[in-house]
Amino acid sequence: MAAAQGSWRLADLAQTLQVELRGDPATEVSSLATLATAGPGQLSFLANPLYRSQLATTRASAVILAPSLVDECAAAALVTDNPYLIYARASHLFDRRPRPDAGIHPRAWVAPDAALGPGCRVAANAVIDSGARLGANVEVGPGTVIGAHCQIGDDCTLHANVTFYHGVRVGQRCTFHSGVVIGGDGFGFANEQGRWRKIAQLGGVRIGNDVDVGANTTIDRGAIQDTVIGDGVILDNQIQIAHNVEIGEGTAIAGCTGIAGSTRIGKHCTIAGAVGIAGHLEIADRVHLTMRSAITKSIPQAGSYSSGTAMSATGEWRKNAARFRQLDTMARKIQHLEKQLRALQSVAPDS
Amino acid sequence: MAAAQGSWRLADLAQTLQVELRGDPATEVSSLATLATAGPGQLSFLANPLYRSQLATTRASAVILAPSLVDECAAAALVTDNPYLIYARASHLFDRRPRPDAGIHPRAWVAPDAALGPGCRVAANAVIDSGARLGANVEVGPGTVIGAHCQIGDDCTLHANVTFYHGVRVGQRCTFHSGVVIGGDGFGFANEQGRWRKIAQLGGVRIGNDVDVGANTTIDRGAIQDTVIGDGVILDNQIQIAHNVEIGEGTAIAGCTGIAGSTRIGKHCTIAGAVGIAGHLEIADRVHLTMRSAITKSIPQAGSYSSGTAMSATGEWRKNAARFRQLDTMARKIQHLEKQLRALQSVAPDS
Amino acid sequence: MAAAQGSWRLADLAQTLQVELRGDPATEVSSLATLATAGPGQLSFLANPLYRSQLATTRASAVILAPSLVDECAAAALVTDNPYLIYARASHLFDRRPRPDAGIHPRAWVAPDAALGPGCRVAANAVIDSGARLGANVEVGPGTVIGAHCQIGDDCTLHANVTFYHGVRVGQRCTFHSGVVIGGDGFGFANEQGRWRKIAQLGGVRIGNDVDVGANTTIDRGAIQDTVIGDGVILDNQIQIAHNVEIGEGTAIAGCTGIAGSTRIGKHCTIAGAVGIAGHLEIADRVHLTMRSAITKSIPQAGSYSSGTAMSATGEWRKNAARFRQLDTMARKIQHLEKQLRALQSVAPDS
Repeated sequence: MAAAQGSWRLADLAQTLQVELRGDPATEVSSLATLATAGPGQLSFLANPLYRSQLATTRASAVILAPSLVDECAAAALVTDNPYLIYARASHLFDRRPRPDAGIHPRAWVAPDAALGPGCRVAANAVIDSGARLGANVEVGPGTVIGAHCQIGDDCTLHANVTFYHGVRVGQRCTFHSGVVIGGDGFGFANEQGRWRKIAQLGGVRIGNDVDVGANTTIDRGAIQDTVIGDGVILDNQIQIAHNVEIGEGTAIAGCTGIAGSTRIGKHCTIAGAVGIAGHLEIADRVHLTMRSAITKSIPQAGSYSSGTAMSATGEWRKNAARFRQLDTMARKIQHLEKQLRALQSVAPDS
Repeated sequence: MAAAQGSWRLADLAQTLQVELRGDPATEVSSLATLATAGPGQLSFLANPLYRSQLATTRASAVILAPSLVDECAAAALVTDNPYLIYARASHLFDRRPRPDAGIHPRAWVAPDAALGPGCRVAANAVIDSGARLGANVEVGPGTVIGAHCQIGDDCTLHANVTFYHGVRVGQRCTFHSGVVIGGDGFGFANEQGRWRKIAQLGGVRIGNDVDVGANTTIDRGAIQDTVIGDGVILDNQIQIAHNVEIGEGTAIAGCTGIAGSTRIGKHCTIAGAVGIAGHLEIADRVHLTMRSAITKSIPQAGSYSSGTAMSATGEWRKNAARFRQLDTMARKIQHLEKQLRALQSVAPDS
Repeated sequence: MAAAQGSWRLADLAQTLQVELRGDPATEVSSLATLATAGPGQLSFLANPLYRSQLATTRASAVILAPSLVDECAAAALVTDNPYLIYARASHLFDRRPRPDAGIHPRAWVAPDAALGPGCRVAANAVIDSGARLGANVEVGPGTVIGAHCQIGDDCTLHANVTFYHGVRVGQRCTFHSGVVIGGDGFGFANEQGRWRKIAQLGGVRIGNDVDVGANTTIDRGAIQDTVIGDGVILDNQIQIAHNVEIGEGTAIAGCTGIAGSTRIGKHCTIAGAVGIAGHLEIADRVHLTMRSAITKSIPQAGSYSSGTAMSATGEWRKNAARFRQLDTMARKIQHLEKQLRALQSVAPDS
């Protein structure tokens, strides 16, 4: 179990992050903190204008911020047009996440015909099954199971207790969090006089490069063809992706969202939390779906889409929700009122 | 790790599937494919009329289809009134899923007083606890934990990283996908002046025959009596079934649905994805619930039920969602308008 | 694998539960059952007035009930003003849940520099990583992984196949059910011209005393500061808690609810199942949210809040849901009707 350590001189940090430094190049920082909580030796950032007033009083040794705010900052400044992105880069320099030791832990079980690239780290009680092929520097956490004939590219990380069924194919630099299940059977059954007859799920799961999959997310294998996750897709926790779904490059999906079978999601979509998307739909590129939307039709055009109702106090809500059941009747009454009113107007004295 | 292999002569295939063959009985097929992607040596099927036009051009060696379509098909035909069901049967003939080797892997841990039937396969790092009894041909995947005194019938499959708490009872031919948790504590607490006091969950979980449970689905043990899943129930991924729920025979539930405590679901229901069902309800047999419905009352009659609103562009939706809060007021205004209009009509010149 | 056993004389039981006994003190009970199913030697309780009529006919040997009902009860009575709470206490006396044997199972793997308090029970295939510190009497189920430098207080239970990432800190008497993942990365990414750049999640997770976490629930680590779960919080199954969420003392959350990043939930809230709460909100103390509500704004005051629509037969629902899209138009039409009606009234003969 090794942990990265490190303190950075601001001069070196500015060079590594490719930003301009205003302040003492010899100052050192060794960790990240928020503007409000940072102390000496800590680096902070300002990305959200809400916190601008904290610049004057922060005790951080240095702050990542936009050029226009340098004069307001009590600390040294790392100046950039995109402070949030530079914070993202800087965060990795201070990441002390422990990793499994290099090599195969004696308590792991690796099938004799599995092939591991150089630099792999396989933790205790991991299982790598027959014919699996791992690239270089793949990290396999404790209790993680990699099924037979899986192919996993260089620099992937599978945290603890991840499960890959057989034949899953993954590109490079992907991350899978604990409890993730890739390649379970799609939910396919034929009904024979009231009995469900299982359809063997013969397809696989194909995942691109730079994909991030959150804890307890599930991605089922395809019925005949593969379920496909494009390059650079990011998936939060507890997402369900059914068989034969395809997700386009660069799409981001927040937690608890479910996508039913054979639906195709476009590229660079942003799907908020707890959205439900029905099966066999086509969602265009660059579609945004707001939180908890229910999507039951294809969306052929980029844009933002929603469903649901806004929150109210429960007493108010009950009255309105009861009226929802009368909506069609209400609409017809309005039409009738309009008609009757027109009739009255036509006979009114001087209307 | 053994894998089924196989190529089928159409004559043998037709006999095994009990369908009529039109075409050369000596032709061989070795895998399944869709009509559009199939090539020589592959079997396909037509169940969805949308794809009918592909029959003329498919390169498949044989197609499972309905009698009325035989003449349109460029390939040999396996003729049946229910192509989807016959495809379901055929799919298992071409399933090459690797299975754990027969016997108990040296890296598994099986309690000395656990009893395993003939033909069981227990993978590396599986744990089978004290007093557990497994029938014949049970498959236990890597990392799977079977708690003390569980009873599991013949021909069940527990994939990798499944968890059974103690005392779970399961019938024959059931499948449990990775991440499934059966028999965790129901969510039962008594409140004592602001503090939650846990109620020990003393019941169990009883699961019938031919039940299929998808990845990361959870079924809690009962508080006093058992939680019960009937024969032939199929559950998709990420479903939550609370304590003392009972689900009737042959009911199918899609992913991300949650059922609160003590609710009883009838037989042969079909519950779509991400439905929420409150506790202590009774749902009749043959009820269908559409995607993302919220069910807060018992449903005494078969039929289809729904809740929620349809999707709109977010800008439009915002305007309408704001009006939802005024629905009761709108309904009252309509009533008032109707009354006033009647008054006017009674005094109008010649209405 | 040891299991508690036991039969209780009613005299001892009444004393232990600190309630009054009406009946033969020498009568023995050895398990709990419902009023309807109990037989001789069983203890039951009446907390829900719906079942009052069963008091006269129950075959239980003793019943926990309120003073006003003693005369209606066919069995011995354990009399208390809060039968549900006393039932909760009694349930633990009859809990026969098997526990791992004391000590470290030879098939577990514990890092040499991990520190375990007295009375710990570590099951087969559990992994406890470098620098982890466990208090007294901690139970670690099979397949459970405790990451490096975690700190876990006395009397905690981690059931099978739980995952703690590194550095998670937990108080005393907490329970974590199978499939729980604590400390996975928060969903933090910066977008660089269409590519998502991961933000290292440097914060931790801090959990108080007496916290209960249901199966397959996920709690992410913070981006910079910690995600915080207060004392006495109870969480059901399949809940998603994003990075930097804070949940106040004594709050209860039912299954399938999701809470987005940086939201703060107050104390003693009760949040029903499948609720979705957006990020960066503040929810006051003692707020109740009904099932499946979508919460997109802060709630500054205690009270009950809801969203969504009530269930209807699908045919009716379709008509009403279509009208939802016209709600704003309907509201405008009503305004217009009101205006026109006023105009007519002003010219009507004798209105």
